[in-house]
Amino acid sequence: MAWERKMMRTIRVRNAQKVGTLARLLAAISSMGASIGSIEMLNETAHSVLRDITIYADDTEHMDKVIEAMRDNEGTRVLEIRDEVLALHQKGKIAIRSRFPIDSIATLRRVYTPGVAEVCLKIADDPELARLYTSISHMVAIVTDGSAVLALGDIGSLASMPVMEAKSMLLETLVGLSGMPILLNTRNPNEIVQAVAAIAPTFAAIQLEDISAPRCFEIEERLQSILDIPVMHEDQHGTAVVSVAALTVAANRTGVDMHKAVIGQIGLGVAGNAIARMLMRLTGKPVFGADLNEGALERFRRAGGRPSNVNEIMSECDIVMAATGQANIINPEMIRKGQVILALSTEVDPEEALARGAAFAADGQAVNNVLGFPGILRGAIDSQAPRITDEMLFAAVEVLVSMTPAGELTPNPLDKKVHQEVARAVALTAMKQGIARTEFIPYAAG
Amino acid sequence: MAWERKMMRTIRVRNAQKVGTLARLLAAISSMGASIGSIEMLNETAHSVLRDITIYADDTEHMDKVIEAMRDNEGTRVLEIRDEVLALHQKGKIAIRSRFPIDSIATLRRVYTPGVAEVCLKIADDPELARLYTSISHMVAIVTDGSAVLALGDIGSLASMPVMEAKSMLLETLVGLSGMPILLNTRNPNEIVQAVAAIAPTFAAIQLEDISAPRCFEIEERLQSILDIPVMHEDQHGTAVVSVAALTVAANRTGVDMHKAVIGQIGLGVAGNAIARMLMRLTGKPVFGADLNEGALERFRRAGGRPSNVNEIMSECDIVMAATGQANIINPEMIRKGQVILALSTEVDPEEALARGAAFAADGQAVNNVLGFPGILRGAIDSQAPRITDEMLFAAVEVLVSMTPAGELTPNPLDKKVHQEVARAVALTAMKQGIARTEFIPYAAG
Repeated sequence: MAWERKMMRTIRVRNAQKVGTLARLLAAISSMGASIGSIEMLNETAHSVLRDITIYADDTEHMDKVIEAMRDNEGTRVLEIRDEVLALHQKGKIAIRSRFPIDSIATLRRVYTPGVAEVCLKIADDPELARLYTSISHMVAIVTDGSAVLALGDIGSLASMPVMEAKSMLLETLVGLSGMPILLNTRNPNEIVQAVAAIAPTFAAIQLEDISAPRCFEIEERLQSILDIPVMHEDQHGTAVVSVAALTVAANRTGVDMHKAVIGQIGLGVAGNAIARMLMRLTGKPVFGADLNEGALERFRRAGGRPSNVNEIMSECDIVMAATGQANIINPEMIRKGQVILALSTEVDPEEALARGAAFAADGQAVNNVLGFPGILRGAIDSQAPRITDEMLFAAVEVLVSMTPAGELTPNPLDKKVHQEVARAVALTAMKQGIARTEFIPYAAG
Repeated sequence: MAWERKMMRTIRVRNAQKVGTLARLLAAISSMGASIGSIEMLNETAHSVLRDITIYADDTEHMDKVIEAMRDNEGTRVLEIRDEVLALHQKGKIAIRSRFPIDSIATLRRVYTPGVAEVCLKIADDPELARLYTSISHMVAIVTDGSAVLALGDIGSLASMPVMEAKSMLLETLVGLSGMPILLNTRNPNEIVQAVAAIAPTFAAIQLEDISAPRCFEIEERLQSILDIPVMHEDQHGTAVVSVAALTVAANRTGVDMHKAVIGQIGLGVAGNAIARMLMRLTGKPVFGADLNEGALERFRRAGGRPSNVNEIMSECDIVMAATGQANIINPEMIRKGQVILALSTEVDPEEALARGAAFAADGQAVNNVLGFPGILRGAIDSQAPRITDEMLFAAVEVLVSMTPAGELTPNPLDKKVHQEVARAVALTAMKQGIARTEFIPYAAG
């Protein structure tokens, strides 16, 4: 799957103006095991067609072979190989900017001495005013130790910065929040909790990112117990919200009642554990869970889950959710007729699962976690809730389900309206639960 | 002095079109002890003149009295009282922004998964590349515990946020850096050092702000010994650079040779101590120092200073620098003929000092610390120096002295050219000293 590839290039080609040239070229790319992204036509003459083709490959060697195959295609000339990703990342993707310019000494005197003093004294008198008169009102710390980054694993916090910057871009673009990456140089849970707690006054919420299990559970729990601002481990709750929403859409479409169905979760890692727990709270029934890690199984049991294994889940469950990080670990022969299967890491090929009689099957490509964290955080911050409750997460699930277009599993992740509605539902839920600390909830965030 | 006032309002008045109305109004304001900022003429008819007058007062009560006096002025009608400072501060003064928009799924795939993975892996392979491909290259932590803020003192870190945001605005506006306020909720030096060290991978430099003595000395020293990025306590070194530059300009103008002169420093707090130390290193001679705090005097003695008192300094020194935070503590009768006096907290009224025979006298109004930290930090970051040396600070002093216009004590603090030149001189000095970690020093920063 393209979204799992680690490398991306844009190749400019000139194809002969002959029926079949492009089709043969794409077939050549596919036969090398690479994925194809956007194909843009730049120019056309009577003799040739100029195109930019984006290719996803596994590594440099793989990419080289793909490009070799492209060069070998009859009627194709490879003109240029561009690394647009690296170009985009130069100097980083975010910056801290003034919200208005300091264009004169008069402005300087308003934003700095002497003008600033009055604002400071007001806040010293009434700390609540910091929400009104400082950027704390929209600052989110995106905290990571880089121990469990995306599909990359333990690459360390420094190397994870490009991912954290992307999260920051999304927070700004989708809900108008200021996401500040905080890269930790410690893995020690005590030290992480202490450091984040020490700098917490700067922020309206804490987003934990890409911290490996089981430390992530302890760190989130301890921080939330100390701080009176929301602490959210995105890889757990953000992913769970989007996954459960997609599963609900799939169940609705196939007429499977999630409250009556037997549900199984294969893979009880950071995401899987959170998904299974959310499904249990949502349905009020235990979920079957499988994991090779004994600690993960035990944690799942303590949360009310029913430890199981892949065989039992495949034979007993009406709905199967998989989040193992490993492709093809489900034997398609185990598929039961009428099963609903959401295999986030392509644990089984959806086509094959459908061929074996599954009522529904999809992989993680349709489940973009970008749909979760921005609106949830914005809603929690708008309501000034001290934490994010299960009910707030359920409210986000509901919005995602209700706004999913027919035929899709989730809404378009870049649709700002969706994020605004998630934020609103989350904030209103906080109000209903009596944990909001403001009565003013914006109807449109951002 | 206006710059010490804690409150600022813009008053819109309609004055009768009669000679003397404005002059009388300004006299009325002055007679109430308030200061006048900008006066803008908005409109004029045959009968009246519409003006916005910015007023600085000590507190609400004082401001009310001033406005009362304005209302009483014959021919003046007060139309509106605006708090433009508060309006400017709403929602804070800074935000974290994307450096380019995420305008399509194609861009999302470049900045986030799958594109981002390759950038992450490159950095994991070669950590130096983080400078090239992440925002770390321009991120500065502006760290405070709010224990010694401006003229406000110990107001806590939350209430100091508006000041930290102003510093961030200045870093962006003047030298293109991203300044991230980090508000601490601890005063314990160990905890501060640990927290800042734990999050240091995020930043290209650490700027300590408004941390009270003597903790600030220990915190700066310990952090710099742990970290391989510059750690600068702005209130010490930034202020010292600007103050020493201004003093040098004053000495040059009056023909006093700083290397031969006897120099005294009244007030050995955070700024005074740094100024005195810098003067000693610059001249190679001990400086006389006075402070009521025994610890401060002892620290000064250990740094090679000569503990003294105000009387001795006033009678012995050719050059007197004062930074006590207290106005009028120098009796004008103590002024020696031909003395050069820079009284940062208006320890003596410059007019009176000149009347008593001083060759030069000025207060802190002319010494804006905005001139120091932006260029110093930018130069240190550009050269990738692991710390800021005395020589780098001296280089900044030299640039400020050489770029000061005739008749002024310092350059215009908002002149970007000055900050670029400071940055360049600081970076080149780091190269000369062999501590730069790059050979590419931009000739124009920002």
